[in-house]
Amino acid sequence: MGQRTIIKKGGETYMQNFVFDNKTKIIFGKDTEQTVGQESVSYGNKLLLHYGGGSIKESGLYDTVIDSLKAEGIEIFELGGVKPNPRISLVREGVNLCKENDIDFILAVGGGSVIDSAKAIAAGVKYEGDAWDFFTGKAVVEDCLPIGVVLTIPAAGSESSAGTVVTNEDGWYKRAFGDIKLRPQFAIMNPVLTYSLPPYQTAAGITDMMAHILERYFTNDKHVELTDRLCEATLRTIINNAHTVLEDPTNYDTRAEIMWSGTIAHNDLLNTGRTGDWASHDIEHELSGIYDITHGAGLAIIFPAWMKYVYKHDINRFVQFANRVWDVEIDLNNPEKTALAGIKKLEEFFKSIGMPTTLRDAEIDDEHFSDMAKKAVEKGQLGNFVKLCADAVERIYRIAM
Amino acid sequence: MGQRTIIKKGGETYMQNFVFDNKTKIIFGKDTEQTVGQESVSYGNKLLLHYGGGSIKESGLYDTVIDSLKAEGIEIFELGGVKPNPRISLVREGVNLCKENDIDFILAVGGGSVIDSAKAIAAGVKYEGDAWDFFTGKAVVEDCLPIGVVLTIPAAGSESSAGTVVTNEDGWYKRAFGDIKLRPQFAIMNPVLTYSLPPYQTAAGITDMMAHILERYFTNDKHVELTDRLCEATLRTIINNAHTVLEDPTNYDTRAEIMWSGTIAHNDLLNTGRTGDWASHDIEHELSGIYDITHGAGLAIIFPAWMKYVYKHDINRFVQFANRVWDVEIDLNNPEKTALAGIKKLEEFFKSIGMPTTLRDAEIDDEHFSDMAKKAVEKGQLGNFVKLCADAVERIYRIAM
Repeated sequence: MGQRTIIKKGGETYMQNFVFDNKTKIIFGKDTEQTVGQESVSYGNKLLLHYGGGSIKESGLYDTVIDSLKAEGIEIFELGGVKPNPRISLVREGVNLCKENDIDFILAVGGGSVIDSAKAIAAGVKYEGDAWDFFTGKAVVEDCLPIGVVLTIPAAGSESSAGTVVTNEDGWYKRAFGDIKLRPQFAIMNPVLTYSLPPYQTAAGITDMMAHILERYFTNDKHVELTDRLCEATLRTIINNAHTVLEDPTNYDTRAEIMWSGTIAHNDLLNTGRTGDWASHDIEHELSGIYDITHGAGLAIIFPAWMKYVYKHDINRFVQFANRVWDVEIDLNNPEKTALAGIKKLEEFFKSIGMPTTLRDAEIDDEHFSDMAKKAVEKGQLGNFVKLCADAVERIYRIAM
Repeated sequence: MGQRTIIKKGGETYMQNFVFDNKTKIIFGKDTEQTVGQESVSYGNKLLLHYGGGSIKESGLYDTVIDSLKAEGIEIFELGGVKPNPRISLVREGVNLCKENDIDFILAVGGGSVIDSAKAIAAGVKYEGDAWDFFTGKAVVEDCLPIGVVLTIPAAGSESSAGTVVTNEDGWYKRAFGDIKLRPQFAIMNPVLTYSLPPYQTAAGITDMMAHILERYFTNDKHVELTDRLCEATLRTIINNAHTVLEDPTNYDTRAEIMWSGTIAHNDLLNTGRTGDWASHDIEHELSGIYDITHGAGLAIIFPAWMKYVYKHDINRFVQFANRVWDVEIDLNNPEKTALAGIKKLEEFFKSIGMPTTLRDAEIDDEHFSDMAKKAVEKGQLGNFVKLCADAVERIYRIAM
């Protein structure tokens, strides 16, 4: 076994050990929502149907889902009303509903907010205390109800991710936590169901999925070439389809590329062997916690600002990003120029799809910068690529003005 | 639901519906083989340890595995002796051993041949008839034993694929079949375990994994941009690491890039939304069925020949391959020139890593061309990108001379 000794050369880091364990069954394509009853029934006969507002009723999706579930003899309990930035109060209501009725399975029909709310309920049902405890780190998930998804908004990637983000109205804390047990059992993804998404929502979703990749891309781990290239491939696909999907919202293939990219962006394939950053998400959570701004829009503002603050930490990585994702020619005599050109490309792209890229665009002033920065670091410094204290976070808000 | 009607424009094909369902847990990195007992024990207490020759004993891996299994109190039955191009006779022996001893779980320690043999045993144990029936299409898998893997040769991708390839010595038929139930429950992948692979084996593995991607890349389905780009990303990673791994076989990160690429190449992510070709694999199977040539080496000979025979069917796809994978500048006035340059790059690459690229290189003459071609199409024409009859297959063998 002599060969098994790893000798590190000159302090270089090696590709990290990893476990990739994603059991979500993806059922992708036209009319796939009609199979939801068949997919659900193996998990039990009592189901919580969780959704947001009236859009799934208007589109006819609600009826399709109900018919498919009833055809399998499943008893349906309903909990609608999930809002963007889902609230812990509704989660608590869902937990009680499930406990009172011995519900076996939660079906989330909607986008990331609905799925995240479903995940928090699923964990809460099998826990004695308050579901918010998972978000503060007071409790860990021992067991949870299984979840299924019919996805209508490609953005959050929650349909096969292990994470959930919920807002506590008591203090407007927006907090995330993750556990592999929370991955949905299946995700039904029909691009046609996304045709009716308005341009702003579509663009915010595109920004969100790009941000999920960027959070993973900016890492201090070296020798993660396959993961880098898979990240770049997914980013390029999203970028290449973004304008088409906005101009031609009922183009099936373009909707399909965006939808599938949103899942790949966040199913943990793109962080194998490395640690991502995630500061921008935390910084944005404070914004959307207070201002109830769309998460994607908040990310379009925060991410370029974060990049401007940190790029000097590893200019080569930003050069690679500029070159491989945006086709910026590398200026070997001035790599910083190339790095900055890549950041500018990203910012211009967000603008071009109708996203705000400054806090002013979103009509947010500096009133709460200091409070938000303090709240953001309550559980410790943010980020992994560069560690950020409250002062650094506040400076990023200022860069974003 | 009016939006749900898909109107096809001008006969264009749309991205296909697909199911992506890969539950194999990947446990990747240094020393991970020490966890094999823990990973195995949840599947039962009686385990068949399946492996090839003596190399796992020499390397110490055998002892590590035995110790880890024994520490969990698992009763071990052994079946070694799997050869490259694994034989149905050993599969039958394994099936009997499992049936006689009520074995719960099969652990394959080795490369693709060992895993493929284990899959055939796993299916055969739960079937009344002869395991070869699965390969002729006479039977389908209703149930099978769970399988785990400790991978020592990155090449076949069998560690998370649904397929298996076995040779019947009675007529030297080499046949493949697949079923999602055959996917291993877990795959333990420590790049250090691949340090001792000799250059020829390493290069044959590299060729095999590239061929798995190429089979999926050459498709008639349009609008599969994400999948295309993920294919290109994985190919570029393999190409970029191939020479380093041959020159510096104990370079951890390079071995890791190659190993993880081999799994991604064949875990079915890279064919979502499309139908791959697979003729080259079938054409090669006849070669290695008769001549017992290494599968990867056979592919290095057959794939460029197949490309030369079919490229006119869709020159643009070959232009994209040349440009995005090999950085060949696109000659807009002569796309055929660009397409051919890409094929040449592939051929030169195979040569540069020590693979044969003609049948002459492998000391194979035209004696059996006609027989092999006839056998290859016994179950119908080969391929999907271009359909090939026996005559076309024979012409490809001639191009490969």
